[in-house]
Amino acid sequence: MGDTKKTTIVLFSGDYDKAMAAYIIANGAAAYDHEVTIFHTFWGLNALRQETNIPLKKGFMEKMFGKMMPRGADKMGLSKMNFAGFGPKMIKGVIKKHNAMTLPQLIEMAQEQDVKLVACTMTMDLLGLQKEELLDNIEYAGVAAYLADAQDGNVNLFI
Amino acid sequence: MGDTKKTTIVLFSGDYDKAMAAYIIANGAAAYDHEVTIFHTFWGLNALRQETNIPLKKGFMEKMFGKMMPRGADKMGLSKMNFAGFGPKMIKGVIKKHNAMTLPQLIEMAQEQDVKLVACTMTMDLLGLQKEELLDNIEYAGVAAYLADAQDGNVNLFI
Amino acid sequence: MGDTKKTTIVLFSGDYDKAMAAYIIANGAAAYDHEVTIFHTFWGLNALRQETNIPLKKGFMEKMFGKMMPRGADKMGLSKMNFAGFGPKMIKGVIKKHNAMTLPQLIEMAQEQDVKLVACTMTMDLLGLQKEELLDNIEYAGVAAYLADAQDGNVNLFI
Repeated sequence: MGDTKKTTIVLFSGDYDKAMAAYIIANGAAAYDHEVTIFHTFWGLNALRQETNIPLKKGFMEKMFGKMMPRGADKMGLSKMNFAGFGPKMIKGVIKKHNAMTLPQLIEMAQEQDVKLVACTMTMDLLGLQKEELLDNIEYAGVAAYLADAQDGNVNLFI
Repeated sequence: MGDTKKTTIVLFSGDYDKAMAAYIIANGAAAYDHEVTIFHTFWGLNALRQETNIPLKKGFMEKMFGKMMPRGADKMGLSKMNFAGFGPKMIKGVIKKHNAMTLPQLIEMAQEQDVKLVACTMTMDLLGLQKEELLDNIEYAGVAAYLADAQDGNVNLFI
Repeated sequence: MGDTKKTTIVLFSGDYDKAMAAYIIANGAAAYDHEVTIFHTFWGLNALRQETNIPLKKGFMEKMFGKMMPRGADKMGLSKMNFAGFGPKMIKGVIKKHNAMTLPQLIEMAQEQDVKLVACTMTMDLLGLQKEELLDNIEYAGVAAYLADAQDGNVNLFI
C-alpha cells in the first residue's frame, strides 16, 4: 500500500491540447502502476460532458454557460493557434496520420485503466452542469477530497 | 514540525478564474492544517494590487504596464469566455447566486487563515509594481525563497 | 544520491513569459544543487527551435505548423497583453533596463548548469518538428522517461 505511487492532476483547462497532455500523463502513470486521479474543475469539466444534448431544467445563466461551453472532449478548442476551429482539425489530422490517440480515445483508455475521473461539484454548481450531462462512471467530490489525494501524491500537476 | 504538510502555489496567471482556483485550493489546504504559501509572480501580482490608484513616480514602461494591468483581484478577466468583461459578470453572478466566495473574499479568507502571500520581487521590478500599490501584510521574496518552501512541499502547483 | 533533490518541469506553453518563469525556476533549482529536468512538449518545443530556417522534407501539415509556430525562444509571444508583438518588445525593454536575463540567455544558462532539456518525441512527431531544427545538446524522450524522473521529484510543475 505504502509503496503505490500516486499521481494527481487538476484539469482546470478546457483546451483540447492541454487535456490531451493531462490524459497522456495520466495514462502513462497508470501504466506505471500509479494510483491516478484527474480532478476536473472549471472549464476542464467540459471534457466530461456527453456529446448529446440532455434537456434539463436550468436557470438563465446556467443555460448560457451550457450553450457557450463545448459539449464534450471532441468539441474543445486549442490553447494556441485555434484559428476558429481550424487548429483542432489540423491536430486531429496529424493524430490520425501518426496513429496517435484522440482525446476521446485517451479518456476511454483512462477509464479502462481505472484512472479515477472526478468532477468538482462546486464548479459544477457555478457553471450549472448536472450529473445527467456528464459521462458515466465518474466520481463527484470537492477540494477536500482532492487535497486528501494530493497530499500523498508523488506527482501533482495543475493543468 | 516534521509532520506539518506543506502546500505551495506559484500564481503566475492574472485570470480571475485561475486565481479563484488557486485561492480555493490554498484555503482548503490551510483548513487541513497545511502550511500554505502562494507565490505571486508576473500577472499573478495583479491579484495583490490595491484598487485605489496610488500616485507613484514611475518610468514610461512601468506606467504603461500599471495602466494596462487590472488593478486588483476584482478587476481581473477570465481565462476563457471573457467576452470583453461579460464573462466575469456572469461568474460573479453565479457566485452570488450560489453563495460562493468572490476572489477578493477568498484572498481575505486566506489572510485570516495565515496563508503566506508572497510577491515576487524580480517580476515586481520588471512590471514596475511597488510595495505601496500592493496589499498590506504580504511578504516579498525571490525564487530562492520559493524553492526553499517548495522542496519540502507535499502539494506544489503552478497556476 | 538519495539526498539530491529533484525538480521537474513540463513546459507545455509556447509563451515567452511562461517559459521565462519555467527557466528562472529551473536555474534557481540548479543553483540549489537540484537535479533539474525541463520536459518540452507541445508548444513548449518552440523554445528549443533554432532561429535559422533549416530546410527539411516535410508533409503539408508539418510545413504549416512549422511556419505558424515561432522559430525559437526569442520569437515567442506573451500569454497576456501580447498586442501583436508589442508586449514582448515591452518585456524585453524592461528586462534590458533591469539587467535581467532574456529567455535565450536563461536557456543558455540552464545548459551551462546541466539542466536536462528534453524534447518530447511524441509531440515532435505530431507537430512535424525534427531533431535538425532543435538546439544541440538536448535529449529526446517520451512520457515514460518524464514520469520516471517526476515520481522521485520534490518539485514537479506543469507550466
